[in-house]
Amino acid sequence: MNNFADIEALTFDVFGTVVDWRKCIAREGRRIGEEKGVDSDWEKFADDWRGGYEPAMNRVRNGELPWAPIDSLHRMILDELLDKYGLCDLTEEEKSFLNKAWHRLKPWDDVLEGLERLRSGFIVAALSNGNIALLTNMAKHSNIPWDCILSAELSKHYKPDPEVYITATELLGLTPEKVMMVAAHPHDLNGAKAIGMRTAFVHRSLEFGIDQTVDLPPKNQFDLLVSNFIELAEALAY
Amino acid sequence: MNNFADIEALTFDVFGTVVDWRKCIAREGRRIGEEKGVDSDWEKFADDWRGGYEPAMNRVRNGELPWAPIDSLHRMILDELLDKYGLCDLTEEEKSFLNKAWHRLKPWDDVLEGLERLRSGFIVAALSNGNIALLTNMAKHSNIPWDCILSAELSKHYKPDPEVYITATELLGLTPEKVMMVAAHPHDLNGAKAIGMRTAFVHRSLEFGIDQTVDLPPKNQFDLLVSNFIELAEALAY
Repeated sequence: MNNFADIEALTFDVFGTVVDWRKCIAREGRRIGEEKGVDSDWEKFADDWRGGYEPAMNRVRNGELPWAPIDSLHRMILDELLDKYGLCDLTEEEKSFLNKAWHRLKPWDDVLEGLERLRSGFIVAALSNGNIALLTNMAKHSNIPWDCILSAELSKHYKPDPEVYITATELLGLTPEKVMMVAAHPHDLNGAKAIGMRTAFVHRSLEFGIDQTVDLPPKNQFDLLVSNFIELAEALAY
Repeated sequence: MNNFADIEALTFDVFGTVVDWRKCIAREGRRIGEEKGVDSDWEKFADDWRGGYEPAMNRVRNGELPWAPIDSLHRMILDELLDKYGLCDLTEEEKSFLNKAWHRLKPWDDVLEGLERLRSGFIVAALSNGNIALLTNMAKHSNIPWDCILSAELSKHYKPDPEVYITATELLGLTPEKVMMVAAHPHDLNGAKAIGMRTAFVHRSLEFGIDQTVDLPPKNQFDLLVSNFIELAEALAY
């Protein structure tokens, strides 16, 4: 599996793989906390908000909730956290702005340089559970140079449902083996692999903070195992 | 209708509005003609190929043909023209390459500067009947700086069906009045207007060649009437 010459496009998971959601959400929580004179553990706030994401998506995936974009799921989770973090006095406008913190996430340090290098050889596309509006705003906010933005929203399924990956490769006009999924999460890559896509695991050792312990996947589980997007560009000879 | 302060995104028709399909397709026809020693009227070839597009789409729109992306419709039309233009000896690979001429179209002279200016104030998105792969390849080929690429393909309807515009505004997370459709074709703008979008007509006086006669739409039919994307940026104060 060392021959990558037939790969034409790379699709990227975004939350955790491209952007550092934890630091950014904690920063936005801290900012509004300071405005309101509230002192809470904003890293814990970020973890709790993100922690509600997988269960909420699973409720959509198993049919308990109808299709809803991530913006709506984020808001549903946020509304349940406001009390705990002393933010129950927020106006509707402030809540809506805070909910859009996910549109303003910033990339890890290696991302912009890595993507520019990869772009010179491949189509680089987002393929996130985030909705198109969120990803578009984020790309604009942080100058992420996507060639195109694809999303779970386009199939109304969430990763790792196969529909997400199948829809993405079809929209790119490519057979799955010509597309490599890049993600920091094995379950995402396993979903891509199941439909025949190539896979690159990016080890984001700080996604969940400095105390994170992540078991690296076994060496042969994915086509590539790298620490950042510069290493990915090098592994793909760009 | 002079107040554009609430507009957040501009969606652009592509063929004719952003790119000069006639000159580019004629050039690609001429190139393969020279390779094969065939002398044909390549501007007429471009016109005939483009001329088959509306009827083919209408066959999809009225249900006579199942949904098919533009790449497939372009190929169906091309196959019927090869004989007439002396190209019946093309290999499958050459036909497939020629069909992708639509992925390699170049923008009008004002487009890149105009889009860069508009991008500083708005989300700028393609909204074309072209499929996502075609639009992505074209943007990469010609450095068109879309914030995101939307397509008729995402609703499996062709413009001016309302589904195309409704899907686009929903994916952008915006109500229709916050989105302005930009096109060189009144039927496209009328489709957008019908669902409540704002509209800008761009007069592309050379789309169909120097002998083109196009009736300008009446002054009040659309929100803006401009000659190019620089004028559009100026009209929107960017």
